Amino acid sequence: MQALLFDGQLRLVHDYPEPSALPGEAIIRPHLIGICNTDIEITRGYKGFKGVLGHEFVGTVVACQNTSWVGRRVVGEINAACGGCPTCLRGDASHCPERTTLGIKGRDGTMAELFSLPVACLHAVPDYVPDAAAVFTEPLAAALEILEQSHLRPTDRVAIVGDGKLGLLCAQALRLPGCEVVVVGRHAERWELLHAQGIETLHAGSIDERRKGTIYRAPTKDESNPQAQESAAEKQPSSFVLRPSSFDVVVDCSGQPGGLALARRLVRPRGRLILKSTFAGDSTLDLSALAVDEVRLIGSRCGPFAPALRLLARGLIATEPLIAGRFGLRDGQHAFRAAAGQLKILLEV
Amino acid sequence: MQALLFDGQLRLVHDYPEPSALPGEAIIRPHLIGICNTDIEITRGYKGFKGVLGHEFVGTVVACQNTSWVGRRVVGEINAACGGCPTCLRGDASHCPERTTLGIKGRDGTMAELFSLPVACLHAVPDYVPDAAAVFTEPLAAALEILEQSHLRPTDRVAIVGDGKLGLLCAQALRLPGCEVVVVGRHAERWELLHAQGIETLHAGSIDERRKGTIYRAPTKDESNPQAQESAAEKQPSSFVLRPSSFDVVVDCSGQPGGLALARRLVRPRGRLILKSTFAGDSTLDLSALAVDEVRLIGSRCGPFAPALRLLARGLIATEPLIAGRFGLRDGQHAFRAAAGQLKILLEV
Repeated sequence: MQALLFDGQLRLVHDYPEPSALPGEAIIRPHLIGICNTDIEITRGYKGFKGVLGHEFVGTVVACQNTSWVGRRVVGEINAACGGCPTCLRGDASHCPERTTLGIKGRDGTMAELFSLPVACLHAVPDYVPDAAAVFTEPLAAALEILEQSHLRPTDRVAIVGDGKLGLLCAQALRLPGCEVVVVGRHAERWELLHAQGIETLHAGSIDERRKGTIYRAPTKDESNPQAQESAAEKQPSSFVLRPSSFDVVVDCSGQPGGLALARRLVRPRGRLILKSTFAGDSTLDLSALAVDEVRLIGSRCGPFAPALRLLARGLIATEPLIAGRFGLRDGQHAFRAAAGQLKILLEV
Repeated sequence: MQALLFDGQLRLVHDYPEPSALPGEAIIRPHLIGICNTDIEITRGYKGFKGVLGHEFVGTVVACQNTSWVGRRVVGEINAACGGCPTCLRGDASHCPERTTLGIKGRDGTMAELFSLPVACLHAVPDYVPDAAAVFTEPLAAALEILEQSHLRPTDRVAIVGDGKLGLLCAQALRLPGCEVVVVGRHAERWELLHAQGIETLHAGSIDERRKGTIYRAPTKDESNPQAQESAAEKQPSSFVLRPSSFDVVVDCSGQPGGLALARRLVRPRGRLILKSTFAGDSTLDLSALAVDEVRLIGSRCGPFAPALRLLARGLIATEPLIAGRFGLRDGQHAFRAAAGQLKILLEV
């Protein structure tokens, strides 16, 4: 079968062996596969993975010992746990030390005509969620992991640094409880879906370092309390200001060390800094300053699929504007070149 | 002016003195006023309040020392704090022991041609939120208070007991982070807006106490994981079951001691039981059983207005189906009789 392989270089192979159906696993024919920044980082050496790439997909089960799954349209969690170790037995399977991870560690990924995944990872997709939305279940679940880990209050002020694929999903998810959300990014052409949901945006290039106290200005304003506006206006001529150390929760989705540094400056003392970026290289933070400011640093990875499917089924998350292009699997190398720095590139099988 | 007064009996008076504009306060002409269960409870003796009733409103500021407010359409928080006591100074103004509360304690309410409220309580309403939605800001904020107080995870199973005004708002608010929500109530004719949002419902009358372990059956099923369905189906012929002690979070919005008892039975050990009901009478719970089960009991009252306005502005909360009728202020007594046991009755001024 055809498969998109990384073995030090990215290449399409035509005679890759088909997976065989192991007990407890399902063989899946993917319809659509998303290219994630992690996939791109892997081709730059992240995790040292070699094998078939890919972990985002929607597809159909074509073989399984449990025949009730055969023919069903599914998405799947990417961590295949052992099920028997102490970590698994306390219900924390996604952190199983023996786990393999689809297209990331010890297990071939989704960028092939067929692949295998444990039945325990599968979630059936409701008929009324189209493939082009369902393929976003995995990254949306990763965004929801923030709400799973941490108490976000409707009155919390939230900043997202980065307006890439994950940043746009995190902003939409964290907006749902009613939070005020600001996205700091460099791609104004992507912001329409944010503005439509009442999410503020700020161009990272508009940050004005010259003003005393480092003031960031945004073009929009809070209309809900004219008195609050007036008192802000006394201090600054602009009606909406972003101050450093003013956010309760800041999420770094930038994938860039500079973005992480900006995120750190935006979070208030005793606030929370959520780390969503994965880098191939190292990144540093001044840990003693974190301690002085009592900032909580929260690493955040994979999240819950069932709520992600519920939100997609309700149409509460815009996914169509996140799609930058579609390629056939055979054009995979071309697709990877197109995906760098872009929104979601999908592979069709 | 006309005012709807409770002084042991509910009556419309035609010559009530108009409020005068105190420093820091605004005089407001209400457009629409909601009748809340608390208003009805007051006419039954709750809180011993005597004066003009009402605390839910949307209206226009007609007089204020700060002239920027005059002419603005507003909603308002109901607690008028002193601003100077230790409770206020630690930012907890809604719990100020010296506070007056609009139409509930020490301050005439909204059911009049004019009333007064501190400017600090006001929130301007965005133009695109109609009066009939804005009048729900206060009860929606009370629903959001649950998300403000407590960490609801997208994977938490949530039950709401009671399908009255507040129950329907709480269900919609707690559904937003992606949670699975079940409403237990007695008014199937009100459930269409819940089903449209993917919220399960169960008729309280369908509770089957005869089955071993007390099984509650609901008519719908979880389609996201056929294997989970199968294992559930092995134990019960129905495809969706509600078991006692199976919910992470249970909210009592029933306003009835029997509803509170049911809510208590639904919450799992170490789960959270949120108390939203206010009764004129006493209510009891077995506190030692609460201790054994390590259930957290969380009283919940008024909530944040700004997120409520953000959600109404996005159209994420259905309010139109919550309106059961409209009456003129002069028909206030009639309106109160109509409001008992019904969804929202609005008074037009």
